Amino acid sequence: MINKLAAKIRQTNAPICVGLDPMLSYIPDHILKKAYGEFGETLEGAAQAVWQYNKAIIDAVFDLIPSVKPQIAMYEQFGIPGLEIFQKTVDYCHQKDLVVIGDVKRGDIGSTSSAYATGHLGKIQVGSSSYSLFDEDFCTVNPYLGTDGVKPFLDVCSQEKKGIFVLVKTSNPSSGEFQDRLIDGKPLYEWVGEKVNEWSNSCMGDSYSYVGAVVGATYPKQGEILRKIMPKSFILVPGYGAQGGKGADLVHFFNEDGLGAVVNSSRGIIAAYKQEKYAKFGPENFADASRAAVVDMIADIDGALKAAK
Amino acid sequence: MINKLAAKIRQTNAPICVGLDPMLSYIPDHILKKAYGEFGETLEGAAQAVWQYNKAIIDAVFDLIPSVKPQIAMYEQFGIPGLEIFQKTVDYCHQKDLVVIGDVKRGDIGSTSSAYATGHLGKIQVGSSSYSLFDEDFCTVNPYLGTDGVKPFLDVCSQEKKGIFVLVKTSNPSSGEFQDRLIDGKPLYEWVGEKVNEWSNSCMGDSYSYVGAVVGATYPKQGEILRKIMPKSFILVPGYGAQGGKGADLVHFFNEDGLGAVVNSSRGIIAAYKQEKYAKFGPENFADASRAAVVDMIADIDGALKAAK
Repeated sequence: MINKLAAKIRQTNAPICVGLDPMLSYIPDHILKKAYGEFGETLEGAAQAVWQYNKAIIDAVFDLIPSVKPQIAMYEQFGIPGLEIFQKTVDYCHQKDLVVIGDVKRGDIGSTSSAYATGHLGKIQVGSSSYSLFDEDFCTVNPYLGTDGVKPFLDVCSQEKKGIFVLVKTSNPSSGEFQDRLIDGKPLYEWVGEKVNEWSNSCMGDSYSYVGAVVGATYPKQGEILRKIMPKSFILVPGYGAQGGKGADLVHFFNEDGLGAVVNSSRGIIAAYKQEKYAKFGPENFADASRAAVVDMIADIDGALKAAK
Repeated sequence: MINKLAAKIRQTNAPICVGLDPMLSYIPDHILKKAYGEFGETLEGAAQAVWQYNKAIIDAVFDLIPSVKPQIAMYEQFGIPGLEIFQKTVDYCHQKDLVVIGDVKRGDIGSTSSAYATGHLGKIQVGSSSYSLFDEDFCTVNPYLGTDGVKPFLDVCSQEKKGIFVLVKTSNPSSGEFQDRLIDGKPLYEWVGEKVNEWSNSCMGDSYSYVGAVVGATYPKQGEILRKIMPKSFILVPGYGAQGGKGADLVHFFNEDGLGAVVNSSRGIIAAYKQEKYAKFGPENFADASRAAVVDMIADIDGALKAAK
């Protein structure tokens, strides 16, 4: 699947993913009204609105991009009806041949971590039958519990040719509270990056590993250092756009082959119609605003990468 | 809810929780056969088997214990049908007046962490209506992302009078890879413990805080140190039984009031009938074996606490 991600990035010239992180406050009134009209102001009504919103955005942008990153928390907050829409969204993105990165940030130990890996990337055996579950192509994993937490994911990745992105240096302001603390002169995120590199060597695709890392766009210097520590890992870069990261901040997240990073934007794309820049589209044409924002994001990153050469 | 947990521990004299972490391999054949007969060897069949297994164990032990800890990964591995059973299990435990600790180990930032807090502990607003979702009483939270990841949970806890347990020192062998690394002469888990103490002071029940910590039974010395760093936090202690922790290892996890810790056992209780010690019950009477194992666990911990006085 890492080979597919790399190939699709080459094909689209767009090292990006669109974060499908719907909030009810992003969804235009005409969609909410229709969904509530049909299902009432219920969890099912909210889930239906989320689905219609997602579907319109996917339909508007899928040909421009290699990948999407649905954030499961935004579906889990609606309970079971929300998780049904998470699954429906993953399935629909597969139909559109998009690589799906499940942003689930799971992490546990032993058989529990195996269960998460099975649920998100693998297949479960029930008697003599086997079933795919949420069936993302990649998922994000929290490293706090050490190798015991990551190894079960590596086993499933090897079997299914899928991948993970391990949290290394997150994009948020307080990420430094623990991640930046110095251990023998090096920050924790570098120690985690070294482990990612070790794990990545055990699980290689053609040029890149199934094991990638998450490093926030808001920390470009750390990105440059981590790029070198984990040469075979794709870096999933959140924090572009709404969180403050710009194209020029991103050049050192990439390798010289122009690959090695996939930059995520969520709100900046899916709620683009709420920005002044795209206000002319209006809420009725929110998906066209999202398409325009994707085109601009690709140009911003492409321009920055060309300027850096 | 922390007040209810403390009161129920006093009432039962059992500072324990039973980990409802079902695996198909634990479930006796007669339950599997019945569920597969009704629903086929499908996800629904597996979920039905898990439900019947859980229900029998809850019915057999609920009067002896204050709390349960369902591990969501074990349900998530069956996709939506599994998560429906997670919800049904939480609801059923509430009917039995048990305190429910959702072992979900979620952790993200900002609005995403808010969404997890809403989904597991809070209520969501849909139009003019509001809905409870999974509705656990406590959940476990990963601290790797710092205060940004924990604060949204604190907000929901204050509002709903619910609580969290933050991972501090986990029970697994490789937990030391990052958690034990020294920062200015102190291991990372102590720094995390100090943050937990800071968060716990902002969110107090009567004698204990809504903010607790997870510290593995397999690390009794670290438990003793962390007990002092976080005096107002309940410690959720996994790793008893199957993972090697014994009653005598646990005494320093408690405060002098006899409270402050809740010890979890999962496999050791729910799959007790598979141990030689409880084999006489046989698979048909697996729930009676679980009850006997709960009685023994309570006696082991009570004996250790009395011996330490």
